[in-house]
Amino acid sequence: MDISKEHIENYLKNLQDDICGALEKTDGTGHFKEDLWQHHSGGGGRTRVITDGDILEKGGVNFSAVHGHTSEALQKQLKIESPLDYFATGVSIVMHPRNPHVPIIHMNVRYFELSDGSCWFGGGIDLTPHYVVSDQAQWFHQKLKETCDRHDPAFYPRFKTWADHYFYIPHRQETRGVGGIFYDYLRPDVVPENHDKAFSKGELFRFMKEVGETFAPAYTHLMTINTDKKFSEKEKEWQLVRRGRYAEFNLVWDRGTKFGLETNGRTESILMSLPPQASWFYDYQVLPGSPESETLSMLVKGINWVNP
Amino acid sequence: MDISKEHIENYLKNLQDDICGALEKTDGTGHFKEDLWQHHSGGGGRTRVITDGDILEKGGVNFSAVHGHTSEALQKQLKIESPLDYFATGVSIVMHPRNPHVPIIHMNVRYFELSDGSCWFGGGIDLTPHYVVSDQAQWFHQKLKETCDRHDPAFYPRFKTWADHYFYIPHRQETRGVGGIFYDYLRPDVVPENHDKAFSKGELFRFMKEVGETFAPAYTHLMTINTDKKFSEKEKEWQLVRRGRYAEFNLVWDRGTKFGLETNGRTESILMSLPPQASWFYDYQVLPGSPESETLSMLVKGINWVNP
Repeated sequence: MDISKEHIENYLKNLQDDICGALEKTDGTGHFKEDLWQHHSGGGGRTRVITDGDILEKGGVNFSAVHGHTSEALQKQLKIESPLDYFATGVSIVMHPRNPHVPIIHMNVRYFELSDGSCWFGGGIDLTPHYVVSDQAQWFHQKLKETCDRHDPAFYPRFKTWADHYFYIPHRQETRGVGGIFYDYLRPDVVPENHDKAFSKGELFRFMKEVGETFAPAYTHLMTINTDKKFSEKEKEWQLVRRGRYAEFNLVWDRGTKFGLETNGRTESILMSLPPQASWFYDYQVLPGSPESETLSMLVKGINWVNP
Repeated sequence: MDISKEHIENYLKNLQDDICGALEKTDGTGHFKEDLWQHHSGGGGRTRVITDGDILEKGGVNFSAVHGHTSEALQKQLKIESPLDYFATGVSIVMHPRNPHVPIIHMNVRYFELSDGSCWFGGGIDLTPHYVVSDQAQWFHQKLKETCDRHDPAFYPRFKTWADHYFYIPHRQETRGVGGIFYDYLRPDVVPENHDKAFSKGELFRFMKEVGETFAPAYTHLMTINTDKKFSEKEKEWQLVRRGRYAEFNLVWDRGTKFGLETNGRTESILMSLPPQASWFYDYQVLPGSPESETLSMLVKGINWVNP
């Protein structure tokens, strides 16, 4: 079965629809507002943003499918010698909830193709609780592991470690949250690093689909079980501090954000990931033994959430 | 006259004292809190932060003098082949006022020396009003021009243009504020680009001193004339939006911030430049003809403030 780029693009549009529907249903109040935009070199996107939710304070579910000639920056990133045509499509999500007990979440699935015939898949889901709840982090990782295991037992351990390293803030020596899975450059019929077998394009596309379809049930569950929890001024302040860290990661370290901003992408779609508000206090300290301190102790690489 | 690094370091410590004193006096309420810190490779700094001001909501006046062996990152930046010892000292300032009618300001003066005998000066002052007031921008640039002109008539036009280019946010197509002056790599006895003569180390040091000493009278004047202005909820919201842009510039584009974070500098001292709070609204629009729209129209490169 040949899986064309149009087929993947159409699938991702439907995924965007489904996810927006599920989030609106769980939120109960908010509605996504759509902006259609065109990319300077070809193609474009559908940015959908929610800002009036009961649970969701600000979030975006973005679809894009763009094409053009590779710029010098892109050639450098892809390590290719001469310009080629490229096609890139994906769905990107970030949700910032109002209640500090509801976690921030990020999801991205993407497909990339070059005119030399090469192509690859990338993506991931990761969770950033303002307050880490071990049971929930464990449940979330279990869901991701189940999704991965249906494809290959090596996927979860490899992609979980990849997320630990990717979603890391070196200047804070903290992970962004409790991680999840992250993968990139999965090429059809090429044995990935640390694997012992190759995957067909169909297998990789099915994996992309399942990652995408893991998002809504996982996050709507976490929205539902946490949104009625009471919170204090102090907890709201901590949320603003954590949102500041989220902005730091995205603006300083996230390769996707950096690449988008440096290559003249649509700024408002790229930066929909930024929190509605954030605070920076000089040298913010948490009290020993406090919930904030407990959270910090879990923002480290290498926690085995599934088998603690 | 030989100007040693100890001499420059001592001068900068006194400059820090003088500036903190002048800011406290004008603020009337707030006091700087000092943190002494050591750099991992040698030397250290005195970070002074104010967070309880009547006019100043959050600001830092940082002195540092660090030394060590050049890292690979530093060698790359300096375009040197093999490792050397380095010494770097400077004073860096950012002030975030409470009232949106008081501008944000930034100042930095620095001196750098390598064990091969080479050395250079860099620095600048630039102003980021939440609401641009033409008369004040003009007055501010006039003060900088007077400082520059006492040294060389080519300094102001050259360093003003350099600031326009440096303090620019490409992904917003906006300057950070109304600019000011920015200069770097001014080496003793070497004719700078676009100049027709060289400057002695003494001349460059005197220029550094005058830039440093221009800061307090210029900014305390702007604090004083603006702080009693009334402001609305709408104006406060706009301040939070502009602070978001300030964070974007510093985290995405500012070479000093980037370099500090990538080379394991003291994070809290580097990121004292971030605003106490910031907001990001998706696709924030200003009303045509509004003061916000007027401000945006002046956040462009190439405005000749001194001779409008």
